[in-house]
Amino acid sequence: MNKAQLISQIKQKQSFLCIGLDTDINKIPKHLLSLDDPVFEFNKEIIDATKDLCVAYKPNIAFYESMGVSGWESLRKTLDYIPEDILVIADAKRGDIGNTSMMYAKTFFEQLDCDAVTVAPYMGSDSVIPFLEFSNRWVIVLALTSNEGGLDFQNIEDKNGKQLFKNILETSKKWGTDENMMYVVGATRAKQFSEIRKIIPNHFILVPGIGAQGGNIKDVVKYGMNEECGLLLNSSRGIIYAGTGIDFAQRSKEKAQELQHEMSVLLSENGI
Amino acid sequence: MNKAQLISQIKQKQSFLCIGLDTDINKIPKHLLSLDDPVFEFNKEIIDATKDLCVAYKPNIAFYESMGVSGWESLRKTLDYIPEDILVIADAKRGDIGNTSMMYAKTFFEQLDCDAVTVAPYMGSDSVIPFLEFSNRWVIVLALTSNEGGLDFQNIEDKNGKQLFKNILETSKKWGTDENMMYVVGATRAKQFSEIRKIIPNHFILVPGIGAQGGNIKDVVKYGMNEECGLLLNSSRGIIYAGTGIDFAQRSKEKAQELQHEMSVLLSENGI
Repeated sequence: MNKAQLISQIKQKQSFLCIGLDTDINKIPKHLLSLDDPVFEFNKEIIDATKDLCVAYKPNIAFYESMGVSGWESLRKTLDYIPEDILVIADAKRGDIGNTSMMYAKTFFEQLDCDAVTVAPYMGSDSVIPFLEFSNRWVIVLALTSNEGGLDFQNIEDKNGKQLFKNILETSKKWGTDENMMYVVGATRAKQFSEIRKIIPNHFILVPGIGAQGGNIKDVVKYGMNEECGLLLNSSRGIIYAGTGIDFAQRSKEKAQELQHEMSVLLSENGI
Repeated sequence: MNKAQLISQIKQKQSFLCIGLDTDINKIPKHLLSLDDPVFEFNKEIIDATKDLCVAYKPNIAFYESMGVSGWESLRKTLDYIPEDILVIADAKRGDIGNTSMMYAKTFFEQLDCDAVTVAPYMGSDSVIPFLEFSNRWVIVLALTSNEGGLDFQNIEDKNGKQLFKNILETSKKWGTDENMMYVVGATRAKQFSEIRKIIPNHFILVPGIGAQGGNIKDVVKYGMNEECGLLLNSSRGIIYAGTGIDFAQRSKEKAQELQHEMSVLLSENGI
């Protein structure tokens, strides 16, 4: 999916919601556990219930990997089940020397046919650039993450007072374009979005951390939205674990509807 | 495997060699391709030929992941085949928010029963600490990597002139001990080992970048070895792709023997 298609989806659905498929076999409703592939069945119901309300799904690869071979099978079935017009982000936080990053890129772009993959920038240019060699795919680089430990290093100021995450934004944006790169900035860092927008006015930003992690949508939009929207707000646990009974998918739908409604108002206020 | 056992293995084998199992189906000898699981068969012959010469194997997870479900099966068989007294390092470069890092830790320590996993530090404390909650396992944190792009960010100096990798060493060493943490420092950074040893005198350091990447063993030992050895030198492509014919494992053995011999001399010179 290219940028124009993504923006078109946002306008059509009046939503910039990304739903995180952090599917944990220990947290899904008990009645699913007797089925052949409970993780896939859970995801299938969540996707059926929410696909008109979101523009992206973000499976968290750790949750599938931790189940071994059966987890990878659940992941593949889930990816196949997501409608074509929804962006698929593999949340994998990969990054290694060039020949190894190329292998990871092949995994997520060729083997699993995902639209996008999250990448950790610590190893620099040759750890990220191999992911950019695939046409019509996206690399989403970690900039300022939503977790508490995110500030341990990302906020360290250099000799000129510039924080590490800004150095990473400035250097890495030269490796690609706003047509094949996005960045991760946590919703818990809302007030830093205006400074970030000075460095990357046109890039999409994937924003985790609303819901379970405590970030606020209005602040993110106030400081982070651009003319094309430029935001994908992710909620994982807040949506997919909204219910624990037989009606869990309906409960998820209601949570997604609440967020989509809030987003539609904010899009409208911004003329999008 | 704990630290005392690792040191005992180094003394016994007179080697601190780690062999990287970056097994690429496109690079292994053609005669293996007709077998059911060529990747495992390749690894099996390499392990048979080299297990007396090394103290660790380091499968590079990207290479298995890129083959999908069959790759994870080849990986599992390989891990099962490695003798108990050899350290197994999953080279995965993982790291995410706490609940997700815990899932990755379960993958590599519980599902796959590896002794150690490499972790990227960019997301800070709560991305690394979950890996430290498993007894008798090792977290190997990226400090100063061997690749060209490694200097893009790792060398950025803070207001006091301290490079990022030193900040990471100083902060992260408090999260664990030299009994459950190691660090990655590339062989191409040999001259920085003496400064690194001031910060982490007792930690083991995993050193990639000899062989294909051009690092020099003598320099690494000169600046990086401590009284307990404290080094694991990794070679991947230089050993496993030493031959391309039916005798590939014998060629690998010869390359490993050359390195082990060089290491035995250096250990002896250092009284270990």
